[in-house]
Amino acid sequence: MKFLVIALSTIPPPLYKSHLSSPRLLVPMSTDFLRSPTNILKAIFFNPPKTPKIQPLAMAACIHTSRAENSRTSSLSCDPNGSQIDDRVCNYIKYCRPNFSDLVSCVPNSENHSKSIRIPEDLGSFDPVQNQDDLWVRMKNEARSDILQEPILSNFYVNSILAHDSLESALANHLSVKLSNSGTLPSGTLFDLFLGVIAEDKEIIRAVKDDLRAVKERDPACISYVHCFLNFKGFLACQAHRVAHSLWSNGRKILALLIQNRVSEVFAVDIHPGADIGRGILLDHATGVVIGETAVIGNNVSILHNVTLGGTGKASGDRHPKLGDGVLIGAGTCVLGNVRIGDGAKIGAGSVVLKEVPARTTAVGNPARLVGGKENPIRLDKMPSLTMDHTSHISEWSDYVI
Amino acid sequence: MKFLVIALSTIPPPLYKSHLSSPRLLVPMSTDFLRSPTNILKAIFFNPPKTPKIQPLAMAACIHTSRAENSRTSSLSCDPNGSQIDDRVCNYIKYCRPNFSDLVSCVPNSENHSKSIRIPEDLGSFDPVQNQDDLWVRMKNEARSDILQEPILSNFYVNSILAHDSLESALANHLSVKLSNSGTLPSGTLFDLFLGVIAEDKEIIRAVKDDLRAVKERDPACISYVHCFLNFKGFLACQAHRVAHSLWSNGRKILALLIQNRVSEVFAVDIHPGADIGRGILLDHATGVVIGETAVIGNNVSILHNVTLGGTGKASGDRHPKLGDGVLIGAGTCVLGNVRIGDGAKIGAGSVVLKEVPARTTAVGNPARLVGGKENPIRLDKMPSLTMDHTSHISEWSDYVI
Amino acid sequence: MKFLVIALSTIPPPLYKSHLSSPRLLVPMSTDFLRSPTNILKAIFFNPPKTPKIQPLAMAACIHTSRAENSRTSSLSCDPNGSQIDDRVCNYIKYCRPNFSDLVSCVPNSENHSKSIRIPEDLGSFDPVQNQDDLWVRMKNEARSDILQEPILSNFYVNSILAHDSLESALANHLSVKLSNSGTLPSGTLFDLFLGVIAEDKEIIRAVKDDLRAVKERDPACISYVHCFLNFKGFLACQAHRVAHSLWSNGRKILALLIQNRVSEVFAVDIHPGADIGRGILLDHATGVVIGETAVIGNNVSILHNVTLGGTGKASGDRHPKLGDGVLIGAGTCVLGNVRIGDGAKIGAGSVVLKEVPARTTAVGNPARLVGGKENPIRLDKMPSLTMDHTSHISEWSDYVI
Repeated sequence: MKFLVIALSTIPPPLYKSHLSSPRLLVPMSTDFLRSPTNILKAIFFNPPKTPKIQPLAMAACIHTSRAENSRTSSLSCDPNGSQIDDRVCNYIKYCRPNFSDLVSCVPNSENHSKSIRIPEDLGSFDPVQNQDDLWVRMKNEARSDILQEPILSNFYVNSILAHDSLESALANHLSVKLSNSGTLPSGTLFDLFLGVIAEDKEIIRAVKDDLRAVKERDPACISYVHCFLNFKGFLACQAHRVAHSLWSNGRKILALLIQNRVSEVFAVDIHPGADIGRGILLDHATGVVIGETAVIGNNVSILHNVTLGGTGKASGDRHPKLGDGVLIGAGTCVLGNVRIGDGAKIGAGSVVLKEVPARTTAVGNPARLVGGKENPIRLDKMPSLTMDHTSHISEWSDYVI
Repeated sequence: MKFLVIALSTIPPPLYKSHLSSPRLLVPMSTDFLRSPTNILKAIFFNPPKTPKIQPLAMAACIHTSRAENSRTSSLSCDPNGSQIDDRVCNYIKYCRPNFSDLVSCVPNSENHSKSIRIPEDLGSFDPVQNQDDLWVRMKNEARSDILQEPILSNFYVNSILAHDSLESALANHLSVKLSNSGTLPSGTLFDLFLGVIAEDKEIIRAVKDDLRAVKERDPACISYVHCFLNFKGFLACQAHRVAHSLWSNGRKILALLIQNRVSEVFAVDIHPGADIGRGILLDHATGVVIGETAVIGNNVSILHNVTLGGTGKASGDRHPKLGDGVLIGAGTCVLGNVRIGDGAKIGAGSVVLKEVPARTTAVGNPARLVGGKENPIRLDKMPSLTMDHTSHISEWSDYVI
Repeated sequence: MKFLVIALSTIPPPLYKSHLSSPRLLVPMSTDFLRSPTNILKAIFFNPPKTPKIQPLAMAACIHTSRAENSRTSSLSCDPNGSQIDDRVCNYIKYCRPNFSDLVSCVPNSENHSKSIRIPEDLGSFDPVQNQDDLWVRMKNEARSDILQEPILSNFYVNSILAHDSLESALANHLSVKLSNSGTLPSGTLFDLFLGVIAEDKEIIRAVKDDLRAVKERDPACISYVHCFLNFKGFLACQAHRVAHSLWSNGRKILALLIQNRVSEVFAVDIHPGADIGRGILLDHATGVVIGETAVIGNNVSILHNVTLGGTGKASGDRHPKLGDGVLIGAGTCVLGNVRIGDGAKIGAGSVVLKEVPARTTAVGNPARLVGGKENPIRLDKMPSLTMDHTSHISEWSDYVI
């Protein structure tokens, strides 16, 4: 039977996290760490795993070895495609250029190498049906499927998803890699911070899962949970905000504001950590979104890019919009001041809203008007944030003359 | 008495800058440099400080040592909270994971280590009252206060603020770290460039200080000068523009345009280096701001995010807006062409302005109209850029019918 | 005669690419690689060039040496300014601080050093007239001219332009440096990917050249092709999209979506890889542009920043706008739904368009109206995307009352 032997220098360190006894001795997941093969070796041998549950996949040489030598007892090893997948990854290795890390490898990559580590057999083995309702299990399955389609991204998927034992850890890692700044904010520091906050504030991970489902459900361009998790900057900005909001609420304002800044730089989404945001949120495209300190956003809200929930005046205090549940706000819209947008209301793209919008009505234009008129506005019978219907109001919009 | 002994490998190099005799021998402040403990040691011993005024704070072990061993004669050592602060930082160290730099330390961290360096006693000692009017002194005090609240950010604050002997140096460093691009634009090169320009063109630092005061005064979300300095990308984009504009005015167009590009990528703020911008500027949130080559902006102007001061046509020449003093422009507004916006004028959010707006009037809408009418517009009696009042005009805005 | 001797550690590795026999042995162009002088030496001596055509320019010491010692036979060596240029670069070296890479150089920089490499004599020698119509030759000439103006950027220009033997290679490199993420997406991997796609899909490089000409022709702020190539994030985002679209069309959706995400983070431009974009495109300023999956854009189109070509509803399928040839769309405009914008149509800044716009007409406002009226709209006689005239319609726009 074939196995993959990978050069130790290519092993992503997060993988070993779960095998270390003390959480304080975790190997840092920062990219700096990855640059030193010595550090990686140290990390491995410091507290070697006795019964490793997962094994790393990385760009590596493909050799034959005896399975008996290091047999595994995995409940997931029933996958009949196991060896086929190994072959595919092997083929991929032949035509892919090695990474930099391979070039500096200090570990000879031979059949005699006793520290050879095999890739997980369950790379392509999907989890049993009984776990299918678990979002994290689905995401790992999606990640395995993506690797089969794009072996070139194996390292990326292992580091970002498969090396983690929980959605919490994967999220803390992904955010810390995105928001770190070499030289000022090391990703290791951010990872510890994020993981600590997410572990403590259980509301966050509930909201994260609802957000993942919201994006997958409402955005036709979202092809999988893992696609949203890895690639949607609106999703990531929202989760970073949840951490910052938790810090802010616990009096750690300096840190919260620093996270706000990094999110604004990296994702071009500027959410004040004081803003109170519900669950099941879709920030679609997200570039240019600005949400002020005293804004409140209900559950199941969809907000397009370039939307401002802004204040007015230089006085502090309660000065930003309050959005009910199920609200949809189109691209490029400004809602300014401490005004209420009622449950299930819809605001068209490019609108400027300075007054209250009643529940289940549609406001459009600059300045915004209620479709159907102020006195007797047309009532929506579906939740606009869920239908994502931005344009059906135009048949009611008498000014539209093209 | 307790002192902190820090591993030399964690010392941020900028600290030693002021002790080196020749400015050409400064250790580079680039992040690359920080990755090599050898370089840091070299920098320290090349020209060791005789009577160090400040000492680095970094993540470190906490040990007891005799004060007499290495006594300091600081005018700021009267702070009665000194030892209390040390304790706090020590406590922090116990629960904080070390950085990568600690792991690669080549200096044993023990009581016998003769090169032990103590943290500054004046970490929490605020400067005497007579200096309180100096903005830079206030910023350093704010930085010390922030470290006490968030010891996890000690390195960040030391590198960004406390290690510098002037606002000029701190600004050049912070901008260079933000705008550098590993592999193409080293932060060391940018630092030298920025510092050189700021040192030569004295108008820049005057404007920087006015901008800091403007943000602190007008933005209720700004909690301190140092918060603005470290976190407000609109502020940083504006200061990078000031450097680029100085280069542009001195014929160094290639460099100026490169800075424009990096600012556009990193902060999503695109200001042509030819634009002439006054002092006391607030670019709030700043994402999506675009300011063209021949635009002129007066003093004490406030501009929200997604504002365009754009040209028209493909002809070169004077083709962009001219803003007077005290103008306020709301989010998402386009002002296009070589039109004048008079002193103290206000333009509402989401407006499109293609014609002159008289002084102290309010223009709103798409296309923009003058509040009160073209013939007899209502005159503002307060400077809108200072009040930041975006919405009071709506009571005069007859079209607004919600 | 004078020559420049450069420290080997400062040689950008891409330079040697063309001298290596096997494409699989290319030295990676990632920034990681550049950090190791050993790797660079390895790369050089692995397969030393016999008759080097170009030689690197980098920050270096300036010494006298005999030309006969290592004579060159270049068809371009007739440049009479050769030695003058060397002097200028030498002078520059005296006042420029060395890079980090110089500090870690393991190669002594002396006259006796047998591996001395001279800078190319043709640094300032412009190519003969017969090649002037070749865009890539012009770009290299522009790069040489820029280096003379700003020697501090020598490394940047060599790495980005002069070290490459084709526009394809330079583009793949520049995009990979911009879009890489240390720790997750190595620039070497991206470079291989981009170069492979561009080499295979010949339409891409044709479109790239048309885009370069479009930007240079239509944007008065663009001073040269190389200025556009290096600095215009709209141009770069568009080219990254062309690669992503090619991958998407070949079923490599995972990779295509990952590139979309990185472009959205790095350039704040979010183009779905499914979008079909013609040639001769200008994305001016580009921040906040969002283009949906089923959007189609014709040739010679100009789109300003913050423009949305968006969908509506959560149903998948054909749901985004279709733009004809020669369309101009002003800043901050939303076009939503599967509507057609006819050839040569113009849409004013800040407009919201939900219906078809006939060819050669102008639509402005929120909601958009046709200038001249729906029944008999005024016909444009010039292509608006080429004139870039955003504002002449206002004389026809009766609502504009300021």
